Amino acid sequence: MEPAALRSLVEAMAPDGETIVARLFRALREGVRSGQLEPGVVLPSSRRAAAALGVSRNSVVAAYELLRAEGLVAVDGRRAPVVARVERLADPVGAAGEGPALSARGAIRCRDPRAGLYAHASGRFRPGAPDEPLFPRDVWARALRRAARTPLGPMRAYEDYAGVPVLRRALADHLRRERGLVVAPDEVVVTGSAQASLSLLAACLCDPGETVLIEEPGYLGARAAFEGADLRPAPIPVDEAGADIDAVSCRAGARLAYVTPSNQYPLCTRMSLPRRAALIAWARAERATIVEDDYDGEFHWRGQEAGAMQPLAPDAVVYLGSAAKSLLPALRVGWLVAPRPLAAALAHAVRNAGCAANVHAQLALAELIESGAWKLHLRRVTRVYETRARLLMEAIRAAAGDRVEVALPPGGLQLAVRMENLADEATAVAGLGAAGWAVARLSGFSTREAPPAGLLVSFAEADGPRARAFAAALGRALAPA
Amino acid sequence: MEPAALRSLVEAMAPDGETIVARLFRALREGVRSGQLEPGVVLPSSRRAAAALGVSRNSVVAAYELLRAEGLVAVDGRRAPVVARVERLADPVGAAGEGPALSARGAIRCRDPRAGLYAHASGRFRPGAPDEPLFPRDVWARALRRAARTPLGPMRAYEDYAGVPVLRRALADHLRRERGLVVAPDEVVVTGSAQASLSLLAACLCDPGETVLIEEPGYLGARAAFEGADLRPAPIPVDEAGADIDAVSCRAGARLAYVTPSNQYPLCTRMSLPRRAALIAWARAERATIVEDDYDGEFHWRGQEAGAMQPLAPDAVVYLGSAAKSLLPALRVGWLVAPRPLAAALAHAVRNAGCAANVHAQLALAELIESGAWKLHLRRVTRVYETRARLLMEAIRAAAGDRVEVALPPGGLQLAVRMENLADEATAVAGLGAAGWAVARLSGFSTREAPPAGLLVSFAEADGPRARAFAAALGRALAPA
Repeated sequence: MEPAALRSLVEAMAPDGETIVARLFRALREGVRSGQLEPGVVLPSSRRAAAALGVSRNSVVAAYELLRAEGLVAVDGRRAPVVARVERLADPVGAAGEGPALSARGAIRCRDPRAGLYAHASGRFRPGAPDEPLFPRDVWARALRRAARTPLGPMRAYEDYAGVPVLRRALADHLRRERGLVVAPDEVVVTGSAQASLSLLAACLCDPGETVLIEEPGYLGARAAFEGADLRPAPIPVDEAGADIDAVSCRAGARLAYVTPSNQYPLCTRMSLPRRAALIAWARAERATIVEDDYDGEFHWRGQEAGAMQPLAPDAVVYLGSAAKSLLPALRVGWLVAPRPLAAALAHAVRNAGCAANVHAQLALAELIESGAWKLHLRRVTRVYETRARLLMEAIRAAAGDRVEVALPPGGLQLAVRMENLADEATAVAGLGAAGWAVARLSGFSTREAPPAGLLVSFAEADGPRARAFAAALGRALAPA
Repeated sequence: MEPAALRSLVEAMAPDGETIVARLFRALREGVRSGQLEPGVVLPSSRRAAAALGVSRNSVVAAYELLRAEGLVAVDGRRAPVVARVERLADPVGAAGEGPALSARGAIRCRDPRAGLYAHASGRFRPGAPDEPLFPRDVWARALRRAARTPLGPMRAYEDYAGVPVLRRALADHLRRERGLVVAPDEVVVTGSAQASLSLLAACLCDPGETVLIEEPGYLGARAAFEGADLRPAPIPVDEAGADIDAVSCRAGARLAYVTPSNQYPLCTRMSLPRRAALIAWARAERATIVEDDYDGEFHWRGQEAGAMQPLAPDAVVYLGSAAKSLLPALRVGWLVAPRPLAAALAHAVRNAGCAANVHAQLALAELIESGAWKLHLRRVTRVYETRARLLMEAIRAAAGDRVEVALPPGGLQLAVRMENLADEATAVAGLGAAGWAVARLSGFSTREAPPAGLLVSFAEADGPRARAFAAALGRALAPA
């Protein structure tokens, strides 16, 4: 090949802001791939090529070395490179397929469990998210900055998959003190979220095809985690005293029961002690595990003194919590409490699944807990949310009290507005959705034919004007035509 | 029940720093649970109880309300509460079981894939972790602080499970520019790590029992992810030109091939273009997916111009990257690039599995990319690591060149030290481990009977003195007795 031909090849290549090495390499690779440069063609020596292109010889040598590493030219000692005989190379456009398809279980894993649940895609009062202005932004920003400036040592890398030691200690203290848990630091596992904890437990405690019990109505994220792990969820009926294990016909043989005893999601009731005792008796008889999701246990204004369920049976309960409700879901920090051998095993599963929490966020949360800033924050949000819950409840009662039933929940971010029937629910959802309120339909949390009807409404942002505006919209939606 | 008896009950309860409401509630709950208070016993009225205990009547009312919510007393209008008839309540200590056991697949998920791999548990030169002093601590801390002070809006909650929009855009730009990828922002999915991406792809692209191909020797995290998803890994042999699909006998029917084409892990070789083309031809013929793990593609000092494999077949390749090697594993930020429909589906799987990345870390990384700070950082680490790689390589050649083969890798954090046989490897591992060097045995990345022998050694921290100290220890370990 003549140096001039090489120059034409390079000049024909549209420049792409890259170095001369990259451009020369790209031009020659394209020449080989297109067949323009046939096997056996001898490229110009680096000296002659450099002269023809007006570049340094080192650049040409580097490009030739890249071609050699790609297997496109053979270089024999100090002689010029020779185009290698290569199979017809892939054409990036011509033979393109349709792209990877989901597997059968992939289609289940990629389902949106909340599809069709909300009255409006992005409106107000959508359940689940805390009020952003209550997030202690400055305190968190400072703690995070300090964490980022702290030398991490082994924490920086592939260690501490159960969580950084200082956070495990802080959480154990906090949960013992505030929720009555029976827990040591090495029984705490920090994860990326309660959803991560659920997915881990679904896979690590159950085998494919096994039955797990979930509250009905119940949390859709749990259903998604269990179905994603190829398990068969069966319902535990819920009433005013919480989930009733004795009402489950297929309870024998189930491996796990998922419950929200302190504030049932979505009905906002508390599980009574006899019901808790019955559930524990079942778990011990079946050697099954109770997964207690205490998703908003840090900010209850009622029943806080009674504590969580875990202390009644630390051997049979795995306890879940997260920073999503009291701080922000965006932090992606959750935790679980499990008996020591299980906690140690789950740390490996956290690493293998890749669902560990950001270390700086872990350190920042530990600092907030240890400094008392979290406790102050929790007191504040408990007060604010209780006020908002009352405001919203009273506004709803005033505007639609004859058509709905609404009670003050024990805590958290949302309240259930019960209705007589699904027709009322549908009417309310249509009217509220049209007015931009993203409330959830209560029947959406159930798979039964006759589910509880009504709405799940967030009061996280319900100041007075918003509470009244929402109640008025609900009243209008439900008013007889 | 007389008020005085109630007082004895409360006084018998060791105080626990709690409120009087909690103490009274706890005393009465214990009384009911122990059988000391039998069904039908009438508690003192709140007025009389308050007087006997010397507390406010509101406190007694609150404790009674808690007992009612727990189902332990019945309250009929304004009359005093009556102890309810409840089943024998769970005894938290007596009947304790052994705790939850792992399921069959749980035992696989909770395996430590790196058990027995390292010469020393916590010593130096352990492969995988970047050098902490190179982490741009102040730049990151400032970006993180700014991110934490930014109002997040919908990003704060259960949205953007494919990653925050500004990071998806920044990564798409970066990957197009620096690695030649064919990618739009909505083809980027941000996850908690490359391991999270692998776990998602294993579950979403393959069904249980299917065969997947992994390089042999190869990355143990990939094997763990695939085995955890109940898949059957089969080996693709690797030589100096990278993974060789044509040498795989069971390649028909495999659903996926996991490869590290730009810097084979652990052999540190580059896959040639003909090998890439053969792999793509296989994937298209089988409608299989190639998972390209470009784990350190941002800081190669050789071959960078040739780019990643994805641009050759964006329809058949899912590309993985992360901030673990160029910044820190502790950040728990990874990404994948997939064809648009798959990327959209995987966002749901990220939410259902709970493996999303911390939002503040996502925003901080986006800021670093957009401001150019990441690129400056990458240039710096490329220079530093190349220097260290050369230092270590030369020190090893000088100290043990007759017993080992070592070449400069194209980039990254580690180099492979090849040895003649497993006996040499064992000798070297024993000697180095005793001296506190946490190198990995090369045979540990293989399941073959005759695996490549040698060491995988990190040069991330290899300044001159450390490189010489390591080389001397290796020389001593390998010296004939």
